[in-house]
Amino acid sequence: MNQVASRLANTPPPPYYAVIFTNQLCDDCDGYATTADRMVQLAAKAPGYLGYESVHDDEGVGITVSYWQNSETIEAWKNNAEHMEAQRLGRDKWYRAFSVRIAKVERASQFP
Amino acid sequence: MNQVASRLANTPPPPYYAVIFTNQLCDDCDGYATTADRMVQLAAKAPGYLGYESVHDDEGVGITVSYWQNSETIEAWKNNAEHMEAQRLGRDKWYRAFSVRIAKVERASQFP
Repeated sequence: MNQVASRLANTPPPPYYAVIFTNQLCDDCDGYATTADRMVQLAAKAPGYLGYESVHDDEGVGITVSYWQNSETIEAWKNNAEHMEAQRLGRDKWYRAFSVRIAKVERASQFP
Repeated sequence: MNQVASRLANTPPPPYYAVIFTNQLCDDCDGYATTADRMVQLAAKAPGYLGYESVHDDEGVGITVSYWQNSETIEAWKNNAEHMEAQRLGRDKWYRAFSVRIAKVERASQFP
């Protein structure tokens, strides 16, 4: 798999779940990158994790979509102790605004 | 509404649908930006359209999520003649790779 392809998640056939996390970072992001990297590593080991896609632009707007087997595994990841501390820091320090949407993927297609 | 907030979609309470479009642009994007802007304008007038969030980074990776009332309005937008021509150009010219996922949003939360 080349580097480009590795930024698109290779998910199984639907149904599965997506967590769509849309966010606007604050200007002061001290500590954010380290914690974000740690959360990616930690999520990848969580039960039910299927993949992850993330893009940030130079205005500090980001969309991260993670994919999960079902809503129970999303709930378990949400309640992971280290992740809960990261969520708290996110609200207190790093995010000016964000939305989280839990969605059931019904259909999917890829190109090429 | 300030400029930051306007980049996050202001959607109604669930349920509604999301189209998660993850993509990697080709190096030659001639004509892409004009068509992409036109599609944003056109989608906003389509029946069932609820909103739109989009981020691209400097590696040419993008995630665009559009929100819709139901799967029927997504299907109608997919089959819009001008959009179909844009999809064809996307496959032929602009995208090295992409994924499209149709997902039913079951839960959503916002901060602040």
